[in-house]
Amino acid sequence: MDPKLIETVVACVVKGLGYKLPVAERNGIPVGISNRHIHLSLKDAAVLFGDGYNLTKVRDLSQIGEYAAAEMVTLVGPKGVIPGVRILGPFRNHSQVEISRTDGFMLGIRPPIRDSGKITGSAGLTLVGPVGALTLKEGVITAARHIHMSDIEASVFNLKDGDFLTVETAGLRASCLKNVLVRVGPNFRLELHIDTDEANATGLNNGDLVSVVPG
Amino acid sequence: MDPKLIETVVACVVKGLGYKLPVAERNGIPVGISNRHIHLSLKDAAVLFGDGYNLTKVRDLSQIGEYAAAEMVTLVGPKGVIPGVRILGPFRNHSQVEISRTDGFMLGIRPPIRDSGKITGSAGLTLVGPVGALTLKEGVITAARHIHMSDIEASVFNLKDGDFLTVETAGLRASCLKNVLVRVGPNFRLELHIDTDEANATGLNNGDLVSVVPG
Repeated sequence: MDPKLIETVVACVVKGLGYKLPVAERNGIPVGISNRHIHLSLKDAAVLFGDGYNLTKVRDLSQIGEYAAAEMVTLVGPKGVIPGVRILGPFRNHSQVEISRTDGFMLGIRPPIRDSGKITGSAGLTLVGPVGALTLKEGVITAARHIHMSDIEASVFNLKDGDFLTVETAGLRASCLKNVLVRVGPNFRLELHIDTDEANATGLNNGDLVSVVPG
Repeated sequence: MDPKLIETVVACVVKGLGYKLPVAERNGIPVGISNRHIHLSLKDAAVLFGDGYNLTKVRDLSQIGEYAAAEMVTLVGPKGVIPGVRILGPFRNHSQVEISRTDGFMLGIRPPIRDSGKITGSAGLTLVGPVGALTLKEGVITAARHIHMSDIEASVFNLKDGDFLTVETAGLRASCLKNVLVRVGPNFRLELHIDTDEANATGLNNGDLVSVVPG
């Protein structure tokens, strides 16, 4: 069957079943601002916090299964130090540090702009925890902006995982942000993820709504 | 005479005389990134650096007559401190502190986005110099993005002081920035001024070129 037809049928059925699009069709896509944070591997967590250490969940994040942990470490770069950087759980296969370009200047490193998980050849950095210090050879990135959405939301938007789109913001610092990666997954909830530089440059706050530029 | 005709004639004459547009017509408008900085009144400089103190020029800035001074002070807000913030000369009638929204979060203040000189009702802050400390009741802003250009450049672009336009950037973080104020003056040189948040959100560096979005 024609995939386009399948998509159309799914979108119609979804709408017919009364599925309530979060805010998408009505107003726009909600913004979630990512402050600097760290995803740790079990092995690296052992170095920073001790063998067999388990993270302490303090708050669920908007994406299902992800949480903010109580644990924090200090980032130490060649030019500066940033204390109190939060660990997000659960553990991942590879440690990944996500910082803004502003943070990079403070630390004296230039992480590349990358999609989460694509850390080969990215920047290195030293992390200092209560039990030990760890120098990552790579794993430090500035996260590329992206929109999470569920399969159903993707159907309704007529988008698929890996698509790119442009979003538009309003206000004194009204901007359009191009090259926004669409990430579709069953556990994803509709949200545009930008970093603190992008939020501050556009004047956006958590929960603000942006619109998709047609075309 | 029709003002539009005058502009057209001036632009033709200017071009006929072989006036060399910096880079504008050829490639775009060069970017100048403003880091946090301070313009001081003579009176406020006396409090921070001592009576009759003169600023020490270390470097001319791109706009004619403006310079970076050797002098620096510490900004002290309710939530944080930023040391080593540079004074720009010459003295002005009113002191003005220009910081990014990121800086505002670090200090614990929320300066409004304003055009330079429009400080009524803006944020306050304490400045600490080698001789004394000074608490400004207002004068702290996040500078609204703007383009400086000479009268001749404005003629060629067919723009006038106070106009607004949209500029476009390229690269991984390609964006368009709306509401860019055009500032025309005989001592101005063609340059888009953005702050560090805007530079980091778009991946722009000093001297990069942006294009004007037609329309």
